[in-house]
Amino acid sequence: MFRVSAADPLKNIRIVLCETAHPGNIGAAARALKTMGLGELWLVRPERFPDPQAEWLASGATDVLRRAKVCGSLDQALGGVALSVGCTARTRELAVSLVTAREAAARVIEVARAQPAALVFGNETFGLTGHQVDRCRLLATIPADRRYSSLNLGAAVQVFCYELRQAALAEAGPRYKSRALASHEQLEHFFAALERSMIETGFLNPEHPKKLMPRLRRLFSRAQLEKEEVHILRGIVKALTQRKAGPRKSG
Amino acid sequence: MFRVSAADPLKNIRIVLCETAHPGNIGAAARALKTMGLGELWLVRPERFPDPQAEWLASGATDVLRRAKVCGSLDQALGGVALSVGCTARTRELAVSLVTAREAAARVIEVARAQPAALVFGNETFGLTGHQVDRCRLLATIPADRRYSSLNLGAAVQVFCYELRQAALAEAGPRYKSRALASHEQLEHFFAALERSMIETGFLNPEHPKKLMPRLRRLFSRAQLEKEEVHILRGIVKALTQRKAGPRKSG
Repeated sequence: MFRVSAADPLKNIRIVLCETAHPGNIGAAARALKTMGLGELWLVRPERFPDPQAEWLASGATDVLRRAKVCGSLDQALGGVALSVGCTARTRELAVSLVTAREAAARVIEVARAQPAALVFGNETFGLTGHQVDRCRLLATIPADRRYSSLNLGAAVQVFCYELRQAALAEAGPRYKSRALASHEQLEHFFAALERSMIETGFLNPEHPKKLMPRLRRLFSRAQLEKEEVHILRGIVKALTQRKAGPRKSG
Repeated sequence: MFRVSAADPLKNIRIVLCETAHPGNIGAAARALKTMGLGELWLVRPERFPDPQAEWLASGATDVLRRAKVCGSLDQALGGVALSVGCTARTRELAVSLVTAREAAARVIEVARAQPAALVFGNETFGLTGHQVDRCRLLATIPADRRYSSLNLGAAVQVFCYELRQAALAEAGPRYKSRALASHEQLEHFFAALERSMIETGFLNPEHPKKLMPRLRRLFSRAQLEKEEVHILRGIVKALTQRKAGPRKSG
């Protein structure tokens, strides 16, 4: 299990690389993590791993590579995570909650003092997919030149890890008591229940879902819901719908 | 000659790589420069340049590579420069002033609004020599983990260029287009409708409301809802409840 470390939030942060094509980038990422005092590298369906290229570019950080966790899905990599931040170079249609790397780092460090957090990076060529973005509670970007904003994956990981370390060093201690944020699983269950209710009542047509669920995901992600709040929201959805489809047992 | 640009200090900064061993790092540096809006790459006695590895890692920044100036000495690369900053991972005995990358960036940008400035990077293995350090007016370091502080050269260039860009942008205005936030009235109408629905379904007991509405208000306030989102939420509440209390006219 992931050990919560109040003493060092950097140890409580996962760097999640999705469908990485070049093993050299995985090695570069491992080195970037280690230089900044991070250690948790999670790999979702890497194309080639382990690989000598990864070892070579990891340089003195092969221990981080060896401890890297390979997962079959992003949901698995985000298990137990309270704040997941998608790192993207693109402005997206529905990317309402887009903050800079620096601001994201401050928020991640605040959360990571009490609960696991994660930064999520997409494939080198395609970036994060819509499905992957949906799993993130916040999007962050490195303010780059608009004419050429494509950082190398290893370089982007370096900048984000650097900002995380600066944020951790800047804060002597938690200024506000941290909230008990809902876990990834809790949120996904809530989204699923909400979607079911909307389909049952005909508000959401599964044949033509439009952007309804992505919009709702982003809205609630922005709020960074607490455990208790997800509880309340699920209760409301249940209460509003329970007697709808005719006589049912309450509960 | 180097053209002074008051409008864009980033165009007035040289990134100088000394005796670089791996051409891939030169390519990675070119890409790092371009993504951050810099363009002046100076190479002091590179071991292999030009080289296909450099081209490959430069990706979309091969134009920066092609314009790179190859010099026989650091003094040549620093000709006309008003502030030269040596970038180092090591603490040195006779260190001139040692500042963080962030502080160095602020100083460099200030100078570069009027005069050329430069960041100087040493060889991958040996770093800056004493002779090279002597040519720098300031030393800067990336605050890294002391147990493993050795960043890849390309990654270090990326972090410094990133900090330069952040320093240059610091005085700029809002970078992201603002969202169409819901008005006060819109939100209050939504809260009222939500409260009515919860009372009708018995989820909220108006005799003992506890903290339910204040909690929901806080939650949705945190999300800073857009007009469109309030619309959607009201639609959902309506759809979930409309047939509940027995046969009613839809609408």
